[in-house]
Amino acid sequence: MKVIVINGPNLNKLGERNASHYGTKTLDEINELLKTEAKKEKINIEFFFSNIEGEIITAIQNFDGDAIIINAGGYTHYSIAIRDALESKNCIKVEVHLSNILAREEFRSQSVLSSVCSGTITGFGYESYLLALDYISRHKGNTKK
Amino acid sequence: MKVIVINGPNLNKLGERNASHYGTKTLDEINELLKTEAKKEKINIEFFFSNIEGEIITAIQNFDGDAIIINAGGYTHYSIAIRDALESKNCIKVEVHLSNILAREEFRSQSVLSSVCSGTITGFGYESYLLALDYISRHKGNTKK
Amino acid sequence: MKVIVINGPNLNKLGERNASHYGTKTLDEINELLKTEAKKEKINIEFFFSNIEGEIITAIQNFDGDAIIINAGGYTHYSIAIRDALESKNCIKVEVHLSNILAREEFRSQSVLSSVCSGTITGFGYESYLLALDYISRHKGNTKK
Amino acid sequence: MKVIVINGPNLNKLGERNASHYGTKTLDEINELLKTEAKKEKINIEFFFSNIEGEIITAIQNFDGDAIIINAGGYTHYSIAIRDALESKNCIKVEVHLSNILAREEFRSQSVLSSVCSGTITGFGYESYLLALDYISRHKGNTKK
Amino acid sequence: MKVIVINGPNLNKLGERNASHYGTKTLDEINELLKTEAKKEKINIEFFFSNIEGEIITAIQNFDGDAIIINAGGYTHYSIAIRDALESKNCIKVEVHLSNILAREEFRSQSVLSSVCSGTITGFGYESYLLALDYISRHKGNTKK
Amino acid sequence: MKVIVINGPNLNKLGERNASHYGTKTLDEINELLKTEAKKEKINIEFFFSNIEGEIITAIQNFDGDAIIINAGGYTHYSIAIRDALESKNCIKVEVHLSNILAREEFRSQSVLSSVCSGTITGFGYESYLLALDYISRHKGNTKK
Amino acid sequence: MKVIVINGPNLNKLGERNASHYGTKTLDEINELLKTEAKKEKINIEFFFSNIEGEIITAIQNFDGDAIIINAGGYTHYSIAIRDALESKNCIKVEVHLSNILAREEFRSQSVLSSVCSGTITGFGYESYLLALDYISRHKGNTKK
Amino acid sequence: MKVIVINGPNLNKLGERNASHYGTKTLDEINELLKTEAKKEKINIEFFFSNIEGEIITAIQNFDGDAIIINAGGYTHYSIAIRDALESKNCIKVEVHLSNILAREEFRSQSVLSSVCSGTITGFGYESYLLALDYISRHKGNTKK
Amino acid sequence: MKVIVINGPNLNKLGERNASHYGTKTLDEINELLKTEAKKEKINIEFFFSNIEGEIITAIQNFDGDAIIINAGGYTHYSIAIRDALESKNCIKVEVHLSNILAREEFRSQSVLSSVCSGTITGFGYESYLLALDYISRHKGNTKK
Amino acid sequence: MKVIVINGPNLNKLGERNASHYGTKTLDEINELLKTEAKKEKINIEFFFSNIEGEIITAIQNFDGDAIIINAGGYTHYSIAIRDALESKNCIKVEVHLSNILAREEFRSQSVLSSVCSGTITGFGYESYLLALDYISRHKGNTKK
Amino acid sequence: MKVIVINGPNLNKLGERNASHYGTKTLDEINELLKTEAKKEKINIEFFFSNIEGEIITAIQNFDGDAIIINAGGYTHYSIAIRDALESKNCIKVEVHLSNILAREEFRSQSVLSSVCSGTITGFGYESYLLALDYISRHKGNTKK
Amino acid sequence: MKVIVINGPNLNKLGERNASHYGTKTLDEINELLKTEAKKEKINIEFFFSNIEGEIITAIQNFDGDAIIINAGGYTHYSIAIRDALESKNCIKVEVHLSNILAREEFRSQSVLSSVCSGTITGFGYESYLLALDYISRHKGNTKK
Repeated sequence: MKVIVINGPNLNKLGERNASHYGTKTLDEINELLKTEAKKEKINIEFFFSNIEGEIITAIQNFDGDAIIINAGGYTHYSIAIRDALESKNCIKVEVHLSNILAREEFRSQSVLSSVCSGTITGFGYESYLLALDYISRHKGNTKK
Repeated sequence: MKVIVINGPNLNKLGERNASHYGTKTLDEINELLKTEAKKEKINIEFFFSNIEGEIITAIQNFDGDAIIINAGGYTHYSIAIRDALESKNCIKVEVHLSNILAREEFRSQSVLSSVCSGTITGFGYESYLLALDYISRHKGNTKK
Repeated sequence: MKVIVINGPNLNKLGERNASHYGTKTLDEINELLKTEAKKEKINIEFFFSNIEGEIITAIQNFDGDAIIINAGGYTHYSIAIRDALESKNCIKVEVHLSNILAREEFRSQSVLSSVCSGTITGFGYESYLLALDYISRHKGNTKK
Repeated sequence: MKVIVINGPNLNKLGERNASHYGTKTLDEINELLKTEAKKEKINIEFFFSNIEGEIITAIQNFDGDAIIINAGGYTHYSIAIRDALESKNCIKVEVHLSNILAREEFRSQSVLSSVCSGTITGFGYESYLLALDYISRHKGNTKK
Repeated sequence: MKVIVINGPNLNKLGERNASHYGTKTLDEINELLKTEAKKEKINIEFFFSNIEGEIITAIQNFDGDAIIINAGGYTHYSIAIRDALESKNCIKVEVHLSNILAREEFRSQSVLSSVCSGTITGFGYESYLLALDYISRHKGNTKK
Repeated sequence: MKVIVINGPNLNKLGERNASHYGTKTLDEINELLKTEAKKEKINIEFFFSNIEGEIITAIQNFDGDAIIINAGGYTHYSIAIRDALESKNCIKVEVHLSNILAREEFRSQSVLSSVCSGTITGFGYESYLLALDYISRHKGNTKK
Repeated sequence: MKVIVINGPNLNKLGERNASHYGTKTLDEINELLKTEAKKEKINIEFFFSNIEGEIITAIQNFDGDAIIINAGGYTHYSIAIRDALESKNCIKVEVHLSNILAREEFRSQSVLSSVCSGTITGFGYESYLLALDYISRHKGNTKK
Repeated sequence: MKVIVINGPNLNKLGERNASHYGTKTLDEINELLKTEAKKEKINIEFFFSNIEGEIITAIQNFDGDAIIINAGGYTHYSIAIRDALESKNCIKVEVHLSNILAREEFRSQSVLSSVCSGTITGFGYESYLLALDYISRHKGNTKK
Repeated sequence: MKVIVINGPNLNKLGERNASHYGTKTLDEINELLKTEAKKEKINIEFFFSNIEGEIITAIQNFDGDAIIINAGGYTHYSIAIRDALESKNCIKVEVHLSNILAREEFRSQSVLSSVCSGTITGFGYESYLLALDYISRHKGNTKK
Repeated sequence: MKVIVINGPNLNKLGERNASHYGTKTLDEINELLKTEAKKEKINIEFFFSNIEGEIITAIQNFDGDAIIINAGGYTHYSIAIRDALESKNCIKVEVHLSNILAREEFRSQSVLSSVCSGTITGFGYESYLLALDYISRHKGNTKK
Repeated sequence: MKVIVINGPNLNKLGERNASHYGTKTLDEINELLKTEAKKEKINIEFFFSNIEGEIITAIQNFDGDAIIINAGGYTHYSIAIRDALESKNCIKVEVHLSNILAREEFRSQSVLSSVCSGTITGFGYESYLLALDYISRHKGNTKK
Repeated sequence: MKVIVINGPNLNKLGERNASHYGTKTLDEINELLKTEAKKEKINIEFFFSNIEGEIITAIQNFDGDAIIINAGGYTHYSIAIRDALESKNCIKVEVHLSNILAREEFRSQSVLSSVCSGTITGFGYESYLLALDYISRHKGNTKK
């Protein structure tokens, strides 16, 4: 089983500032936790990060596996282009957010990606990623939509 | 550790119709799965169901434990009264939905409860409840906001 | 053939005030007219009234017959929970209103129930109920959606 | 007693296409049913059809009788001019629609005519017309607003 | 002279949390203050509390007296059903709120009840209730709208 | 000097109903007043009435003179087609209304014609037409935009 | 017969700039024209100008005559306070504008004054004032609303 | 203890017109009632009235006392400038309205002042002022925010 | 192969005014170009023009051929009735506009017809019609939707 | 004559999925068709594809030729940056879309690019590109705006 | 070279409260800084302050110099009358704000003045005024628009 | 002291077109002016330009200095991703625009960046950059928020 974790703009700066919204863990630390958990579940996990919208689209297009965990950062709220890339992908797609986007600024309350994902997990800090992996690991052998 | 699972209007009818949106499991079957999982984790779990908005509020007020898993059904979209009850509660609060509410009718795309919950899990069918329990079980001994 | 007439909040007060909007007949008098008409058509008719949103939902869920005539009163305009209950019901569902809701306050011009009903009859006073029964009686033996 | 049935644009094409929305009966067949029913009730019934907004207005102005049954088709949603013609008419006015306009495209959910009609009947297919006639026949001798 | 004080959802929890918005007095303490003041003014005062929208409606319908003081809690912002119950009542009706609802979340800035009440008092903490009673006591013998 | 007075839907029914909005004069009586006044000013005046939007457009297109006085009735609020016809016309164009459209229903507060007319006169009853003629008579020999 | 012409902010600068919108006549020149016309009609005319909203209100309150001609300049679009002053005044009230406010910036398309005036004349340059006077002079002896 | 009562535009005309909205008492009569009540409570009371927005701001700035009772009339609905003046003032601030602004025109339903006042009292006629004074007299010695 | 070109209101005036928006060719000249091109492609072409909305609907209903090219002029923006006529037609339907409607007034940016047409060509002047014919000529023998 | 065809995000995946919206041809196949057609017309054609918004902008800036055919994919709906790049370009600019964007999700109904293009062709599948080329080939020697 | 600095309502109270938004300098202190800087640049500087909207308009009208620096305080957000005064003025016009109006309440995010000013400087505290003066001093001898 | 000037899409084309909006200076010429000015103030200045949103984000993240001057071009109006990058940066951040964005198309009137910048300077052409540098040079040694 093969999973990709895609992180969008500014998530490389996790742990440096805004701890009240995003927690104190860095992206590397979160990825380590995911790797450990994936290993236990015998899941092949890889990671992609980019600040560039179009590179995220290309990563989604190039991915040939069973599940995508995506946190598109600021692009979540307007990138119809990323949405189109996800919509064309025939696998499990889980949208995650660290903070509770509905309890912050109003422009963050809308996600243009949610309606093309299998499901959304929001507000649990770095554990949002772990829960996404939990979900995926329950679905080994059954990942086509 | 003590957890309550609160289900709102029409969730007693799960499994009877609209399987494409809500799956084929009944509420009783989901509750059995949750009980089994809770037992493994040595979590004390109880269940509450009502079609009546005010009784859901009373159930929230009366609950004296560590975590609430709530699927408020149709009330999700307008019950500021349930929101106020949740807001006053000092414990983990996880909002769950079976279907991906953002991929359905527009009036379902807004939840007035999300901003007062710890986090939201939506779109994973009955597994949304299980993921909520996963999250809670990771937080034994640390459930006050 | 079995029909239920469900009335929501404040309709127990018909005939007492606001005669210009709702007419001078009480709910009991309307029910008597419906009983008489139903008898002629050999229709088994029953009545349910509640001020409580959740009890109306339960009444819809519990009903096991051929047709529902519903006037949800003030809940008409926001109760997605009642809407969900109606949507799950596989029988004729007729929404009625005594007054012409489109000729009154703007907040009354929207019904969240209409789109899950077979049809809507509005503005004919107590005769709205009678027309609903007329429609149902034409459909004996053919009441599944 | 004298009644006119006014049909607006495209209703002359009933029964040809879109049977799922409008049913399989042609306008002529519906009119025959109405004639039969009117005869039983000793009601003098006449029919008017036009694709032209202004001709519908003229038909309303010229009508000198007890009741108007009107299905203004697409004009329902924007013709303030037809609305003004109906508003000036001192008789029973019943708005009918074959399909449930509230369960279709959003632009069909608004009727500018409803607030000047006695009442509205929507969603019962060709029976919407028959129910309108039912209502009118109950009001013989009492048709002034 | 007979007055009822109706409190809606979550007001039974006053004094427990959110003291910055709602003050430190419990509902019982406020009611005691009102009883004392009412006694001085020889006003017969009674109290009703419910979390259930429909029970509040029934309480309004059943009340046969001179004045209603109502704080409908979260229902304030969407309950057209409670509004309809108040609208039908021929007595003094005073809407009160402890906090200044206009200085909080935007969804709290609208009250669907205000336009059917005699007046509204908002933002004075528990004294909002006392001012309502002050107003009523000035109107002994003159409480019909 | 040549002037046309164009009246749209339902204005042929002036004086019959709704005197509070439109006054008691019939369209013929208003036209007589205009004729008399025009004669005094040695203005050649003609009249056009139609319920049909497209015929009003044709009348505007065919007119070859110095000034148009137009009351488009209900079409005022949505006929971009009449607007386009007026916009292409190189002469004085005065929009008139009998009633104060801004003091009535909200849907009447917008005129899609105003921005392509020389000016607008509204609310003076039949005198709105006379004032329009006053304006035109001041501009003999200077009617091109 | 006594008439006041009230001009609001920036109208003292007419003729200096923006001739394409407002024409080349100064306010003094317009007033001279009005005086001449008033003299002919034996109307007692006076003039008031202020940049200050509150002084315009006072001028309206203090005026004890038969008709007000008002061009409130920029206040037209938001001054509910001037609106309230006009609403309380029992005489003819004519709103005038030099330019066609509907053919300019969108924020100019709304007048909060129109609905409390007898009528509105807009777009005829300085002649808007003269037409207002025409209207008033036709109503000698009949100026109470 | 020192209190100022500030009245805005058109309130000097109370009692003259629109008795159904504002009652029959003049502003002087209301002020006399307030003086009498203030005397009983040994409160030093003064009065300020102006039609001019900026003078109301200056009055607020210059006031050096314990409480402000303000009815800003039409400015209530748009004067951010008065709002800013009130916001900077460190004393009790009570907004009052004679009529129930929520039961009138829609543009009156918003107050830009409410969110910077201690509380708001609306709909009790001249008694709104008296209730405001009642509130203030309860707070002798405790008027700083 | 049989094609109809339908032109709506004011398009008979092409070439006379507004050349910057619509070009200098008259409708007859455009039709001649289309005839020549159609002849080359052995397409049977006919033309229909009307200012009247309902006649355009009738022309659509009566047409029994392979493709419709339609420029509905001002009706483009609000005629749900023309939309309904097009929707029922089982052939190629191409919407054309001379000017780029999206680069003009905001009310022109919406077409209610586009969603029921095969495609839309806008902004190429009279060549929009020629491109539409190009498209149709490629589809000989394959014109049913 | 020199033409560039610019395709934006996800158009490299044409033909793989969503055939109902986008057809079965791949981007390469469409480009081949365009090359063949261009060759016939002796047009020098080149192709550019990128998922990255900024690279599309650079491609537009660097292009030194006669015409641009652009399908900006998901960026169509929000990229003001691409719009600005197109706006600055002095050549023919044709916007194309395969599907009828107005008959799909609402967020696709707005193009921020249309108003700076010469024209738009939408809904004809891969033939939209061919029609764009048809248009361009008619304008040899005349491609400056 | 002659410059005026115009300050609107409540800016006379700078330095007294709300230091977090507006800083600790008083208006006099800021003016002293401006005077010093102006002296260095040999600019003739004068100051105007008023709480009254109309007086600000008059000050703008009366000013006969090269540049206006304006902070209209609360009037910024709705005074079309001040906007009109500025629009008519043929000199440099710089709008300044102490706080970042876009990072505060939503009603402060709109300035009706910006679009008629040369430019806007916002968020730099008292230095916003100094930067405005910097800009002006660079334009000696070139201040007409 | 270290400053970076970041320019977004299309600003590399300054001076080539649209001189009325953006002036005649190229980006290189502006940068030279900034270098000269920075040298005088002993400020270390560097420049970054990209058409690519994500590269701008990376540039912001990588910058380790005292102040950012940013003109994000078209991204200004929708890039929440750039906003997030700026928000996380602990230094002076000045947003600049050459043209007065509020006096142009409506979609340019909103900046999603302003609320996370220290201040905004808009409308002064290339001098907007110089004023930004002026501001920064006054804050040597004090650039942390």
